[in-house]
Amino acid sequence: MKLKGKKALILVEDLYQEMELWYPLYRLKEEGAEVFTVAPEKGRIYKSKLGYPVTSDMSADEVRVADFDAVIVPGGYAPDLMRRHPAMVRIVSDALEAGKVLAAICHGGWMLASAGVLRGKTVTGFFSIRDDLVHAGATYVDREVVVDGNLVTSRKPDDLPAFMAAVIDAMSR
Amino acid sequence: MKLKGKKALILVEDLYQEMELWYPLYRLKEEGAEVFTVAPEKGRIYKSKLGYPVTSDMSADEVRVADFDAVIVPGGYAPDLMRRHPAMVRIVSDALEAGKVLAAICHGGWMLASAGVLRGKTVTGFFSIRDDLVHAGATYVDREVVVDGNLVTSRKPDDLPAFMAAVIDAMSR
Amino acid sequence: MKLKGKKALILVEDLYQEMELWYPLYRLKEEGAEVFTVAPEKGRIYKSKLGYPVTSDMSADEVRVADFDAVIVPGGYAPDLMRRHPAMVRIVSDALEAGKVLAAICHGGWMLASAGVLRGKTVTGFFSIRDDLVHAGATYVDREVVVDGNLVTSRKPDDLPAFMAAVIDAMSR
Amino acid sequence: MKLKGKKALILVEDLYQEMELWYPLYRLKEEGAEVFTVAPEKGRIYKSKLGYPVTSDMSADEVRVADFDAVIVPGGYAPDLMRRHPAMVRIVSDALEAGKVLAAICHGGWMLASAGVLRGKTVTGFFSIRDDLVHAGATYVDREVVVDGNLVTSRKPDDLPAFMAAVIDAMSR
Amino acid sequence: MKLKGKKALILVEDLYQEMELWYPLYRLKEEGAEVFTVAPEKGRIYKSKLGYPVTSDMSADEVRVADFDAVIVPGGYAPDLMRRHPAMVRIVSDALEAGKVLAAICHGGWMLASAGVLRGKTVTGFFSIRDDLVHAGATYVDREVVVDGNLVTSRKPDDLPAFMAAVIDAMSR
Amino acid sequence: MKLKGKKALILVEDLYQEMELWYPLYRLKEEGAEVFTVAPEKGRIYKSKLGYPVTSDMSADEVRVADFDAVIVPGGYAPDLMRRHPAMVRIVSDALEAGKVLAAICHGGWMLASAGVLRGKTVTGFFSIRDDLVHAGATYVDREVVVDGNLVTSRKPDDLPAFMAAVIDAMSR
Repeated sequence: MKLKGKKALILVEDLYQEMELWYPLYRLKEEGAEVFTVAPEKGRIYKSKLGYPVTSDMSADEVRVADFDAVIVPGGYAPDLMRRHPAMVRIVSDALEAGKVLAAICHGGWMLASAGVLRGKTVTGFFSIRDDLVHAGATYVDREVVVDGNLVTSRKPDDLPAFMAAVIDAMSR
Repeated sequence: MKLKGKKALILVEDLYQEMELWYPLYRLKEEGAEVFTVAPEKGRIYKSKLGYPVTSDMSADEVRVADFDAVIVPGGYAPDLMRRHPAMVRIVSDALEAGKVLAAICHGGWMLASAGVLRGKTVTGFFSIRDDLVHAGATYVDREVVVDGNLVTSRKPDDLPAFMAAVIDAMSR
Repeated sequence: MKLKGKKALILVEDLYQEMELWYPLYRLKEEGAEVFTVAPEKGRIYKSKLGYPVTSDMSADEVRVADFDAVIVPGGYAPDLMRRHPAMVRIVSDALEAGKVLAAICHGGWMLASAGVLRGKTVTGFFSIRDDLVHAGATYVDREVVVDGNLVTSRKPDDLPAFMAAVIDAMSR
Repeated sequence: MKLKGKKALILVEDLYQEMELWYPLYRLKEEGAEVFTVAPEKGRIYKSKLGYPVTSDMSADEVRVADFDAVIVPGGYAPDLMRRHPAMVRIVSDALEAGKVLAAICHGGWMLASAGVLRGKTVTGFFSIRDDLVHAGATYVDREVVVDGNLVTSRKPDDLPAFMAAVIDAMSR
Repeated sequence: MKLKGKKALILVEDLYQEMELWYPLYRLKEEGAEVFTVAPEKGRIYKSKLGYPVTSDMSADEVRVADFDAVIVPGGYAPDLMRRHPAMVRIVSDALEAGKVLAAICHGGWMLASAGVLRGKTVTGFFSIRDDLVHAGATYVDREVVVDGNLVTSRKPDDLPAFMAAVIDAMSR
Repeated sequence: MKLKGKKALILVEDLYQEMELWYPLYRLKEEGAEVFTVAPEKGRIYKSKLGYPVTSDMSADEVRVADFDAVIVPGGYAPDLMRRHPAMVRIVSDALEAGKVLAAICHGGWMLASAGVLRGKTVTGFFSIRDDLVHAGATYVDREVVVDGNLVTSRKPDDLPAFMAAVIDAMSR
C-alpha cells in the first residue's frame, strides 16, 4: 500500500471511457488512497459510452485542489463535455499550478488544452487529438506513457498498466 | 434552382450529427447541385450517433478537389474519426487552397484545425471546441453563421437554416 | 426568403422519421417562415424512430388552423400514433377545408385517410400504404412529388428536395 | 388436444408484436397442431419490435394455402412490412377464398385490407387502423374478439386469450 | 374453460424471459383462471431481458399463498434477482408445503433451490443450472416437462406447450 | 513488478461484468505477468453485459493448465454461459487440483460449483448465489475477499482492489 493517506480526484462526465475511469479509481484504492469522483453536479449518476454508471462524490465548484494529491482525467468523449464547465477546467489548471500530480489519458488531453497547461510540455494522448495538443503548445510523442514533471499522459485503454504505474510512482515521490 | 451544374462533397464518418449531414445534402440537391458523400472507404455504410445510415459515394483517396465547388464538414463526433485519415484532412486543406467553398458546422471545426486552414481566420463552431479553434490560429466569434472569404462556419444544428443560406450564397457567387 | 410572414405547423409524435420532420422545419425557417410543432401534448419531448428528440410547441387542442398557412405531416410510424387523437386529425381536415397548404410525406398519408380529405384527390405516398390511400378514395401515382390543388404529397425521405420545393412554391402563391 | 392433424401458418416479418406471434404459435402446438412461420424469405431470422428472433420455416412463394387449415396474422408494425410483398398478401386472400380459418390481431388488419377480404365483413382491430378497415369495406366493432364466418379478429395483446379460444374453436369445427 | 374459479400467482422481476411469463399468464386466463403478478414491489413496471414491460399486481409481502392454487416461476435472469428477496422465496416454499401446484421453467429452478424444495424431487430445468439443482438435492432428467407430485418443471421456451398442458392438468385435479 | 515471468488465464464469455474482467487483466499486466483470455472459441469477440468487447486469445480446448500460474473467473452472467462448456469447467477443476491460484468474483462462483471444487472450502461470492455455493459444499462468509489455500473469492466489483491484492499476493508466494 504505497498511497496510504493520499487523496485523488477523478473527473467524470457522461460518455467517459469505461476502463479509463474505473481502472485508476480501483487501482488507487488498492494502494490505500482515498479517491473522489468530481463532476459538474454532485450526487448525479453519469454514464459511460456504453452506459456504465458512476456517481459523482463532489461538484467541481466545491473542490479545493489544495486538499488533494492528484487529479486524473479519463478519456472517451467525456472531456468534450467536461471542458464546457469552467469549474471543471479550473481543477486541472489549479492542479498544475499547485504542483499536484496531473494525469490524463486518451481524449483527456482536451482538458489539458483548455486548462492552458500544455505550453512547453512533452505529452502523449490519443492520436486523433494530437493536433489539438500541439496547437496548445505541447510536444507530442507516441509512447504508452510520458512523464514530464508532475504531468503524466497516456494514449489509450491498453496503456492503463503503464499509466497507473507512472501515476502511483509520481504520487509516491 | 441556384446551383445547377455545381458539385459538392460532404465528408462522412460514424457518429455524425444526423441533421448536419442530411440537411445540407438534401438542401443542395433541392438547388440542383450534385452531392457526393466521401469517407475513408467507398460504398460502406456509416452510422450517425443514433444509428441513421449513410452510404459513402467515394473514398477520400479518389477525390480530386479540383472537380468540385464546395466541401462540407458536418459535426457530431464524426470529425474526431475523420481526422484520423490524412486523405480526409487533405480534402479540407485542398479545398481552402483551391478557393473552393469550405463549410463546417459544430464539431466539424476539428477538421479545419487538423487541416491547418484556421490561421488568421474568423470562425464560429460548437463552444466546447472553441479552445482548439483558437489554439489553431482562429479568431472565434459566437454567431449562428460566420463567413470569412470562402470559409463558412456555424455552431450547432439549429443554425442550419442560416448555415445553408450562406453556403448556397457562397456557391452561387 | 420567400416565406417572410408565413406560419406553418408540423405535426409530431413519437416514432417520426427523422429527416421528414427536421428537413421541412429547418427549410421553412430558412425561407423566413415561422414554424410550430404540434402534438397531442404541449411542451413534451417526442422521440423519432431512433430517438432523436423534438419538443412540441403547441398542443393540438389549442391550434386554430385559420392562423396558419400550411400543415405538414411527416412519416415514420408517427402517423399511426397521431391518428389516435381526434384533435390531431381535425387539424388536417380543417387545413384542407380552409384552403391551406396541406403536405404529407411517406406514411403521413394515413393522416390524410383518417381526416377524410382524399376522396377524388390524386396523391402519392409510401408504397406500403397505397391500399389505404386508394380505399380512402384517392388516385395513387408513383412520383417523387404530386401536387393536387393545395395538397402536396411525396413518397419517402429521398423525395424531400422535391417535396419542399413544391411546398414552398405552394406557400408562395 | 383438439387440433391433432391440423396445420397452421403464421405470417412473420420484422417489427412483429412479440406475444401476438408466439402466443398463437405455442398455443396451437399445445393443441397438437403443426405450425409453420412464413415470411418473404425462408430460413431468415426476423426480429420483433424489441428484437426477439423468429426463424421463418417457409417463404411465401412456396406456400400452397390448400395444404393448411388456418392463417394467422400477428400485429406490431410487421403488417406494414408484410404487405409490401404480393406473395404474402396472396396467402391471406387465398385463405379467405378457400374457406380456411383466417385470423388477424391488432395491426394485422392492414393485411386484410390489402388482401381485399374485408368488403361486407364485421371485424375488430387496433383502434388506430379502424379507418383503414372501414375504408376497405368492413364494419368495425370494438370487442375483444369478433368472429364473422371463418374470419377471426382481435384488438391487442391482452385479447389473446379470447382470440386463441375463438381460433381453436373455428379450427375445430 | 377448465380453471374457472382458480387463482394463480406468477413471480416477476427484471430480466424475465418474455414468453415464459406471458404464455402462462395468457394461457391460464384463457382457461378462466384469475392470474396475479407478484414482485418485490407492487405496482412497479418490471422489464424483460429485451425490455418488454409487466406491471406487478401484488408485492411478495402481501401474498398469502393459501389464497391461491398455483405459483409459477418464469426464467431468464429474473430468478437471480427474485432470490435476493426472502419474501419472494417464501412464496415458493409455502406453495410446496401447502400442496399447491408449483411450476418452474428454465432458470426458474434457482428459486426452487433457494426455497429448499428440491430434496428428493425429480425435475428438469435449463441445462446450465443442472449442477445447482442436483447440489440442492434433486434428480435431474432431460425432458420437456417433468411432473413430480405438484411440482412441474420444464427446460426452455419451446417447452411451453408441454409445460402449460401439465400445469393446467395439475391445477384441474 | 511482482509477477515477472508469471502467466495467468482469465475466462471469458458474453455477458461478463466489465470491470471484473478488465481490472484483473490490466492489473496483472501492471505487475509484469502475461495474461491470456480463454473462451469456448479462440479469436472470437465476446461482449460484456453492456457490449464492451474482448477477444479470446485461446480456446478452452487448447489450454494446458500446467503451463499457467493462475486462473481467474469474472462475474456478470458470463459464468452461466461458461459452465455450458465442459472444457471451460475443466480448466477450473484442473487449476485447483494442480495447486494453481484459482480466483472467482461475484457470479464467478457458479463455475466453482460446476467444477466441484467447493466441498469443504470457505468462500464468498455475490449474495444471490450463496445458496448454490453452500449446496455445492462450501462455507459462505460475507467479506470483501476470502482466501482459503489457493482459492481466492470476492463478492462484487467494488471488492476488486482487495480481490486483486489477494490474487497478486497468492501468485507471489
